[in-house]
Amino acid sequence: MSIFECPSYYNEVDSYVYAAIKPVLRTECLNLEDSLHRVLAEDITTLKSIPPFSRALMDGYAVKAKDTVGASPDSPKIFEIIDYLYAGGVSKKYISANECVHITTGAKIPDGADAVVMTENTGIENGRLCIYKPVNYGDNIEAEGQDIKKGRVLLKQGTALNPSRTGLIASQGISNVKVYEKPKIAIISNGEELAAADDILKDGQIYDVNSFMIGAIVKENGCLPLKFGIVGDNPQQIKALIDEALKVSDFVFISGGSSKGDRDFLFEILQKLGRVPSFKTKPENAKSGIFVISEGKPVLGTPGFPTSCLINAYVLLVPALRKMAQLPYHFNKSLDVKMSEDIDVAKSITGCFLPVKIEGERAFPVVNDNKGLINIAKADGYIILNEEIATIEAGSEVSVTLF
Amino acid sequence: MSIFECPSYYNEVDSYVYAAIKPVLRTECLNLEDSLHRVLAEDITTLKSIPPFSRALMDGYAVKAKDTVGASPDSPKIFEIIDYLYAGGVSKKYISANECVHITTGAKIPDGADAVVMTENTGIENGRLCIYKPVNYGDNIEAEGQDIKKGRVLLKQGTALNPSRTGLIASQGISNVKVYEKPKIAIISNGEELAAADDILKDGQIYDVNSFMIGAIVKENGCLPLKFGIVGDNPQQIKALIDEALKVSDFVFISGGSSKGDRDFLFEILQKLGRVPSFKTKPENAKSGIFVISEGKPVLGTPGFPTSCLINAYVLLVPALRKMAQLPYHFNKSLDVKMSEDIDVAKSITGCFLPVKIEGERAFPVVNDNKGLINIAKADGYIILNEEIATIEAGSEVSVTLF
Repeated sequence: MSIFECPSYYNEVDSYVYAAIKPVLRTECLNLEDSLHRVLAEDITTLKSIPPFSRALMDGYAVKAKDTVGASPDSPKIFEIIDYLYAGGVSKKYISANECVHITTGAKIPDGADAVVMTENTGIENGRLCIYKPVNYGDNIEAEGQDIKKGRVLLKQGTALNPSRTGLIASQGISNVKVYEKPKIAIISNGEELAAADDILKDGQIYDVNSFMIGAIVKENGCLPLKFGIVGDNPQQIKALIDEALKVSDFVFISGGSSKGDRDFLFEILQKLGRVPSFKTKPENAKSGIFVISEGKPVLGTPGFPTSCLINAYVLLVPALRKMAQLPYHFNKSLDVKMSEDIDVAKSITGCFLPVKIEGERAFPVVNDNKGLINIAKADGYIILNEEIATIEAGSEVSVTLF
Repeated sequence: MSIFECPSYYNEVDSYVYAAIKPVLRTECLNLEDSLHRVLAEDITTLKSIPPFSRALMDGYAVKAKDTVGASPDSPKIFEIIDYLYAGGVSKKYISANECVHITTGAKIPDGADAVVMTENTGIENGRLCIYKPVNYGDNIEAEGQDIKKGRVLLKQGTALNPSRTGLIASQGISNVKVYEKPKIAIISNGEELAAADDILKDGQIYDVNSFMIGAIVKENGCLPLKFGIVGDNPQQIKALIDEALKVSDFVFISGGSSKGDRDFLFEILQKLGRVPSFKTKPENAKSGIFVISEGKPVLGTPGFPTSCLINAYVLLVPALRKMAQLPYHFNKSLDVKMSEDIDVAKSITGCFLPVKIEGERAFPVVNDNKGLINIAKADGYIILNEEIATIEAGSEVSVTLF
């Protein structure tokens, strides 16, 4: 067991947790339309070249380029129009010398042709085509496979699908893909004082908040929340619920009971479960958390105060979820802005986790403590303060991790 | 009809489109658990103060503060322990002079008590409590309503729900919320050459890509895609499908047929539909787009080439979707990094839209053209180039809008 002080909390504990997490490798087949933000469990190989045939890049006339040599407005080259061809259609005609086929953008180049003359450089006289400007071999044609060649690996296993990658798969006519299953995250709220939503509050009770917040964070990061509800301050019941959760999930998250009070049983329970040393961070303050690997499965315990629970979730849980789901490490969620005012780091009551609201190009600190939620709900994201820097001056640049 | 040149494209056309968009105001009731990233259609008002009762912030003993005056290790104050109280429980006892109740964190302060003495500053002797350090009135107590006061507006109509805001609603025991419906976006792919996924490609055909990409972008931005499939190059059929789409959707997106070729009917059709002037951007190149408002509903037409379609979608469609859904304007999707190499803006073949891949802290340009998709699928996002700046030098800071 090791104790970490802030900001080591974010340097050592989070690396420790991150290193202990393993990606979930179960796979499932999904409709391409349902696979957005999922991670490929197979290479996608090109079945068909794109384009699958040489095609016109312009509306105009398909010709043999050599027949246009010397064409000019004063001395046009004359061609017989032997066919009219639109995108999606195919011409059965073969283009011989001084013959052409009228063609629209995207249509397959007829046999015998090797260039397309733009409509703008042509005219019609007595039903025949006059070409006013020569073209070179291949002009205005996109060759078969120019974009994507057949047999090539289009997208590698492990790629997270975004709109353009979804499009790339669709270009092959593939409508089902093999992706990794969403990791299953069990969520438990511990506390004799907790009531479930819609229950009538008894005197001394408060509503469970954490399972809703954590469920949302789990969903945002490519995982599936499994809600195990509320458990009171009974160590046998807590242990039984954790055991049940471990059977059906890939990760167990439990809030409440992680401190050292009379009724905080979590530390004791998890220490018995774990095969690797468990550790606990700053047990004296609200940022205490407990992490253990039990039979290969991670269990993370956090305090019950919603803000403390939320901070632990953003700093420790989110990277773990993304690693399990094989999603990029919190990649698209930061914004560089200027600090609105001087921040005295030592006086920060949320420790190294400073919630901020962004207005324009500036980050405004949101006054908060480790208990309440009203203020953090106003924040757009947070800054990790480095205790070695005593003050962040107004106007200096800070990187905000967005909620 | 006005023609815009790049980069005006991104300054004037997008402002024009954005200004013409109206938020969708239909509402629906959802389970709180299903409301992540949805937008509140009602104010959420506090039904219960949080905490709903004054509660202990520490494990210890609830006392009258005045009875502890003068307490010290040498001269402890002695108290009768009249009850044991845990979070979630309530004591029926009234604390009189020199009486105390053992209490755990989160438990309701018993009547008569006005402070909590930490366990660390106490001892037990002959079954009675010795207090070694005085406390002040209110010490270690969180007063009723200290976090959230009853009757206060917790979250305003128009707020997009994130995890902490979801938690704030849960703190009230509210499990259903009124949110705005997702705007419905009709998606049509136009082109005689297009085949649907899973169909066998006929000679001259390619698979429809755009409806998959646009469907994904629509989902990413809080809207609901309604797929209207593929329509060939028949102006009556195109018009009929747009009419049908306008009846059931809030916005119609159609790719293909937006140029000025023989079989590009879209411009003509939309001009007849529109009550406000339609416009078209750079019809000569792949970035041409058409936008019109028909009986209050926006219709956006883009070229069929996947990259052109995608660029139009990111630049014109995404802000429109977010405005319709009342989501923040593309807020959490940019990243400031350094350019990996010199960029000659005039030579950019994708015009002012430069796809980049991010590695470490640097943005690497992805070579691309307006037709293919293979390279853009490798990109992590894009930079908007300003034609007034001829070169972006290696190492200079650029803002990448992430895909």
